[in-house]
Amino acid sequence: MTTETDFDKATAVRPAEGTDDRYRADFSTDWLNHGHVNGGFLLAVAARALGERLAQGPARVDPFALSAHFLSRSAPGPVEIRTDVVRQGRQLSTGTASIVQTDQKGVQAERVRITGTYRDLDTLNDEVFTSATAPDLPPREECVSTETASNEILSRSQLHQHLDLRLDPRTTGWSNEEGPSGEGAARGWMRFRDGREPDPLALLLASDVLPPVTFDLGAAGLPLTVHMSVHVRAKPAPGWLRLSQRTSNYAGGFLEQDVEIWDSKDRLALQARHLIYVVPFSG
Amino acid sequence: MTTETDFDKATAVRPAEGTDDRYRADFSTDWLNHGHVNGGFLLAVAARALGERLAQGPARVDPFALSAHFLSRSAPGPVEIRTDVVRQGRQLSTGTASIVQTDQKGVQAERVRITGTYRDLDTLNDEVFTSATAPDLPPREECVSTETASNEILSRSQLHQHLDLRLDPRTTGWSNEEGPSGEGAARGWMRFRDGREPDPLALLLASDVLPPVTFDLGAAGLPLTVHMSVHVRAKPAPGWLRLSQRTSNYAGGFLEQDVEIWDSKDRLALQARHLIYVVPFSG
Repeated sequence: MTTETDFDKATAVRPAEGTDDRYRADFSTDWLNHGHVNGGFLLAVAARALGERLAQGPARVDPFALSAHFLSRSAPGPVEIRTDVVRQGRQLSTGTASIVQTDQKGVQAERVRITGTYRDLDTLNDEVFTSATAPDLPPREECVSTETASNEILSRSQLHQHLDLRLDPRTTGWSNEEGPSGEGAARGWMRFRDGREPDPLALLLASDVLPPVTFDLGAAGLPLTVHMSVHVRAKPAPGWLRLSQRTSNYAGGFLEQDVEIWDSKDRLALQARHLIYVVPFSG
Repeated sequence: MTTETDFDKATAVRPAEGTDDRYRADFSTDWLNHGHVNGGFLLAVAARALGERLAQGPARVDPFALSAHFLSRSAPGPVEIRTDVVRQGRQLSTGTASIVQTDQKGVQAERVRITGTYRDLDTLNDEVFTSATAPDLPPREECVSTETASNEILSRSQLHQHLDLRLDPRTTGWSNEEGPSGEGAARGWMRFRDGREPDPLALLLASDVLPPVTFDLGAAGLPLTVHMSVHVRAKPAPGWLRLSQRTSNYAGGFLEQDVEIWDSKDRLALQARHLIYVVPFSG
């Protein structure tokens, strides 16, 4: 029916031989973000493995409410995903997934621990009583494309080369002579460059592809995600996604980053919150 | 140094004999909310057990970033809390805790699964670059006290009898002839009636004691929490807490409830998000 796309290949998981709860995957260097494995990418791989595990049960399952606690820094290369079923109900199923890597000395380290509650998103009713509104974005042709950006921060990410990302210029002053706005926001349009349409797994990736809000705050330091909480609130319609990130509480070296993803039919498809540690630049 | 308070007694955990990873506790009928064990109370008990477990390691630990996936409905009575250490680092430690109850037929059921990242909150630096502002609350004497409320929903909760809760009257129209505002908010002042000062565990309880935002929305149905994500961002100063809850996305039968708790020194001490299923009243 469909050709396997870049994203589907990169996040593919296969059962580990002789087990029904372990999966293998490979973190490709072709999806790194400035040398690092992206948090949303990790989450998509873990959620895919957990989804396959829970699909062994009776219910149709999509990722719905996910928590990810990041434990150590991932590297490109092979990974094992260990899954555990916590509860399988008629509507909601919950499980855990750990991504584990073995280093060159043979030492195993857990990279991320996720707990996920899954459900069939197609059975959500269509009633919307909502005051949330989609981000006010300029037309795509007036946005800053990561493809044409001269700024190294935008252009040196293999991950972003799979995406067509158009950033709201009101949130990219940090990349040019305007300077950061100080608002602590990032907004933009996104789709996959190869035309793959969004689905819940793609939303997990998309929840972590905008520039960190620290750039727009003008905050020095390396942002490191400690915790992600993600709610997939609707299966996204085909077409462009609109992404929005903002923070209101940068204190004690940590900040929250609230993410919204809106689909082409004006549905709020994902709400996420990241807890981010801003590692001071030593010097 | 201190007398054990109501809240400390109610959330007390003791090691299960012969183990170093299991704890026992009792859900008292004296802390029920309309016949149910409150989600914030559950979280406080689980977080306390996990904190004791992680305190066996080298680091001083306070609950910092917690995820709770609710699995089945708790009942008053004895519980077992099973803990697991995921990672102990110099600054951050992560573990899991499950609350398990055994029913009258001897069947065990897991009530909630939490994953918690802990750290020493005293070592957070004092720098605050924040645009968040404390909720604008009327003076306490102009607020609606749960003690004097004639409304049954407010007055028939044993849990709330341990609290001095003063609700912003702009968010309590649902309890009188004014009717719900439709904004989807709840706000108020809170302290323990016995004078116990707030700490991180108390914040976990406080993150779930306001009336659900469904009341102020005028949404029919029983709110049932599926997932909680909680960040304790500062050790609260002594004195009254200011609590705020709001929603912006009630869709497909689910809504997010964003919680903020501010302390008496105007620090944003807790940020939480609940994912709530609104169970339709059958009729």
